[in-house]
Amino acid sequence: MSVDYVARRARLAGLLPAREVPALLVTSPVNVRYLTGLVSSNAAVLVRADGTALLATDNRYIEVARTLDVPSVEAYDVESALVEPGAGIEAAWMSVATYRRLGAGLVPLEPVVELLRAVKDDGELELLRTACEITDQAFADISGKIVPGITERDLARLLDNRMTELGADKPAFDTIVAAGENGAIPHHAPSGREMRTGDLVTIDFGARYRGYHADMTRTVCLGPPTDWQREIYDLVAEAQRAGRHALAPGAGARDVDAAARGVIEDAGYGSRFRHGLGHGVGLEIHEEPFLGPSRTGRLEDRVPITVEPGVYLPGRGGVRIEDTLVTREGGPELFTKTTKELLVL
Amino acid sequence: MSVDYVARRARLAGLLPAREVPALLVTSPVNVRYLTGLVSSNAAVLVRADGTALLATDNRYIEVARTLDVPSVEAYDVESALVEPGAGIEAAWMSVATYRRLGAGLVPLEPVVELLRAVKDDGELELLRTACEITDQAFADISGKIVPGITERDLARLLDNRMTELGADKPAFDTIVAAGENGAIPHHAPSGREMRTGDLVTIDFGARYRGYHADMTRTVCLGPPTDWQREIYDLVAEAQRAGRHALAPGAGARDVDAAARGVIEDAGYGSRFRHGLGHGVGLEIHEEPFLGPSRTGRLEDRVPITVEPGVYLPGRGGVRIEDTLVTREGGPELFTKTTKELLVL
Repeated sequence: MSVDYVARRARLAGLLPAREVPALLVTSPVNVRYLTGLVSSNAAVLVRADGTALLATDNRYIEVARTLDVPSVEAYDVESALVEPGAGIEAAWMSVATYRRLGAGLVPLEPVVELLRAVKDDGELELLRTACEITDQAFADISGKIVPGITERDLARLLDNRMTELGADKPAFDTIVAAGENGAIPHHAPSGREMRTGDLVTIDFGARYRGYHADMTRTVCLGPPTDWQREIYDLVAEAQRAGRHALAPGAGARDVDAAARGVIEDAGYGSRFRHGLGHGVGLEIHEEPFLGPSRTGRLEDRVPITVEPGVYLPGRGGVRIEDTLVTREGGPELFTKTTKELLVL
Repeated sequence: MSVDYVARRARLAGLLPAREVPALLVTSPVNVRYLTGLVSSNAAVLVRADGTALLATDNRYIEVARTLDVPSVEAYDVESALVEPGAGIEAAWMSVATYRRLGAGLVPLEPVVELLRAVKDDGELELLRTACEITDQAFADISGKIVPGITERDLARLLDNRMTELGADKPAFDTIVAAGENGAIPHHAPSGREMRTGDLVTIDFGARYRGYHADMTRTVCLGPPTDWQREIYDLVAEAQRAGRHALAPGAGARDVDAAARGVIEDAGYGSRFRHGLGHGVGLEIHEEPFLGPSRTGRLEDRVPITVEPGVYLPGRGGVRIEDTLVTREGGPELFTKTTKELLVL
């Protein structure tokens, strides 16, 4: 499926008059990729309100740039090569050093391209669907290896290798495997900790496929769960279900968060769930929109997003359950399909 | 080998008076890791000229932060939690949006922590040595798979998997495999292009081990090289040797570049080598110091750095040869030890 970059730039151009700038200097590498197709670590694109555009990149990427449907210039200092008086800049991305170097007269703007990127076209959804299929399959393929004695680090490596074997570009982010008490640390880095019977094990991972990021978390139990393990697992599963069901075009970002958080708070574990409920996924693993108690804004149609409540008990362990879904009229479409029944291994 | 973070912060504190700031608000994640040991995507540390420090991170990382030898506070907006009037900020890292949010009175500074990081201590060199050993071993283990019919993408995947099997955290960067005409693109992304007899194949990759990045490039030939292939291979090898021999504490960054570049220019290929000669490696894959025609500054002792000249002939192919070395009194120490004889496979 070919991507219509001209149409993407035209949509961006249409947003510029309301921001009172004649052009936007786009310097976020992901936004440059989204608007032109160029994957690089040093490129910028100037998109003008009339829909014309100019791409700049250095000699490492210029050969590729010349194959794209946008005029390009070769430069190492890509910002200086493109800057025009009064242009908007991406304030969340441009460094203070670059801004000072470019001189006065530029207009720092809130994220613009990120708003466009939140709503995906058919080609993007297809890539994300494949990323999620690889994610599900990799989990199925390695689940027999989640046994007492294997370390967090070795299990993470098995998962990462399996995803690339299945066609992933690479893991979408640093895979989390957290056994036993480590499960109380939401972003635990895999260690030499060996799995033991009685552990809850949280596995948070995903495949990146042609630039698009999947994200899924499952918590499994080594041996029959104790009462407290079963209690928090069922609680998180219920909260996750409530969050998924609240996903809809038009829903408020904070309301979706509240639907899941309320379940956990009502059970008396509110202080044990202290991160946001979810985030958009696409060309970045964390992108607009974000779901959380202080997030404003409403969801649109065709927005891939995660729902990932958790309960974390310091010194004991934790549970997190996460899916990637896509908002749709009539109900969200589930992209990660691994069972959410508690797997007892 | 335990890391003395207090000593690192003391060295930073000693650099602040000359910059006329009472403290530096460090917000680069890599610099926060270097100064505290905390690996996170949302943390900052304020280091004062008297050597005291305060770390801020959010609830995802605070449990880990509390185990470190620096006082910490929990906050989501880590910059606001730490900012003090007149403090220096890392201008190359902080976004315009954050800078504006924090208000007036801050002092944008050129890189400071990066200068400290260029010179490695024994523990860092040991980790980097291991990263390079894994890199060499992975190349040896997959070299039998560089045969007609395999795609660039599959070869890259084999290398990446082998590195993680050998103990790497992950690949140090997106592995480059460029066959035939793709070798003329210095940063080619691996594609479905199959290798064919007669191809030069450039492989640029490395292992990351406990945060430290190795970097190596070899170009091999499928079948006996033609005259032009042999000519540019020998030329790049001679240039690379000249660059390595010019590496020494006290040498100018542009002079090392010139030592290698001159060899290529003298042979009439100067316009076919258009990137810098090399870069520091450590907690980042590209860090200070950089070797290039317009780089100022001089090398110090114990600085890990790459030497990577190349010649690129559009439409035909290219050669790049790269090692990671460490500057030493008495001559550089070679960390990547794979042969630089032309491998004919």
